Amino acid sequence: MAYKENYPSVLLSEAVEAISSLPGVGRRSALRLALHLLKQPAENVHHFTQAIDRLRDDVCYCSRCRMISDSEICSICGDHSRDQRTICVVESVRDVMSIEGTGQYHGVYHVLGGIISPIAGVGPSDLTIKELTERVHALDNPSESEIILALSGDVEGETTAFYIYRQIEATGIKVSTLARGLGFGDDLEYADSLTLGRSLTNRQIFKP
Amino acid sequence: MAYKENYPSVLLSEAVEAISSLPGVGRRSALRLALHLLKQPAENVHHFTQAIDRLRDDVCYCSRCRMISDSEICSICGDHSRDQRTICVVESVRDVMSIEGTGQYHGVYHVLGGIISPIAGVGPSDLTIKELTERVHALDNPSESEIILALSGDVEGETTAFYIYRQIEATGIKVSTLARGLGFGDDLEYADSLTLGRSLTNRQIFKP
Repeated sequence: MAYKENYPSVLLSEAVEAISSLPGVGRRSALRLALHLLKQPAENVHHFTQAIDRLRDDVCYCSRCRMISDSEICSICGDHSRDQRTICVVESVRDVMSIEGTGQYHGVYHVLGGIISPIAGVGPSDLTIKELTERVHALDNPSESEIILALSGDVEGETTAFYIYRQIEATGIKVSTLARGLGFGDDLEYADSLTLGRSLTNRQIFKP
Repeated sequence: MAYKENYPSVLLSEAVEAISSLPGVGRRSALRLALHLLKQPAENVHHFTQAIDRLRDDVCYCSRCRMISDSEICSICGDHSRDQRTICVVESVRDVMSIEGTGQYHGVYHVLGGIISPIAGVGPSDLTIKELTERVHALDNPSESEIILALSGDVEGETTAFYIYRQIEATGIKVSTLARGLGFGDDLEYADSLTLGRSLTNRQIFKP
């Protein structure tokens, strides 16, 4: 092979390496994307890279809920028609977008920015749990407010939920968690036994 | 929805739009990639975008074969141990990399930069066919040289091959094309009938 590392050009090799650092993008896809970008007009490519640079450099987070925002207070926290006494605690920005997508929630959020995971080296101080605790303690009347712990159902999610619960239980705030059970439309046949067992234990009164 | 176009931030929305303009990347993947980039240190993100900008702005093409190159003459054209009298004509940079990957070819290349396709509005003047014709006419002794038309086997590929053949046949240069037939290890059972039929017609003497 006459090519250094099988690429005909160092510039191409560096671009492929950069693109393949993205999660889920292998070297073959990265090469395909690099050659695609090479065929585009230069201003389109600059528009592409500038949009990414601007996102990284200029992004703001809401000072209240830590959601990505274009302003000091995000559009949800600033919306007085929303119930500011119900705070839904989620792991990430994407979770907020998923819940907003349901159109079923009219409270506000708190984005943790991750989940407690000793294996990944993420402790409580790496998340916005301190900010959440301060937010709860600053509520006028915590016992009339509610925290919804909308975290994942795995060990890390449960650990994080428990940790947060211990930080705020003294305020007397109502703490709830998402309902878990069979998905709507799910077949019993294909449900895993843990979910099916919990669905039986947590069965609800039939309301036709 | 409180969000403009379902995104919590214009910067995020613009980055997702830019990323989803890549081929094969939908809006969901683009959001995942944008949020991934947001979590990376700023210098990593700048390194990523600069590698792409540099590729687009500073890339060179070999003045002889039109391959991506870091210099005026690429490492293959400049390699005097390679057979400069055998020119393999391919559609794209990726085809050169595929053929180099076989380790079976020791000639040089000519990259057309596309294929004649009236439907896509690509004519002979959009490709490097004129440069190829000039290159062939400039050969010392064309009848001792060879052009390998390594183009795809579809209508566009055959049209392009025929067009090139007509441009250079007067020079008396040997023109060949890739062998087509069943792939090595292919089962007859699963071969399409066109390929199987052509494999029969173009059958070769068995050399054990």
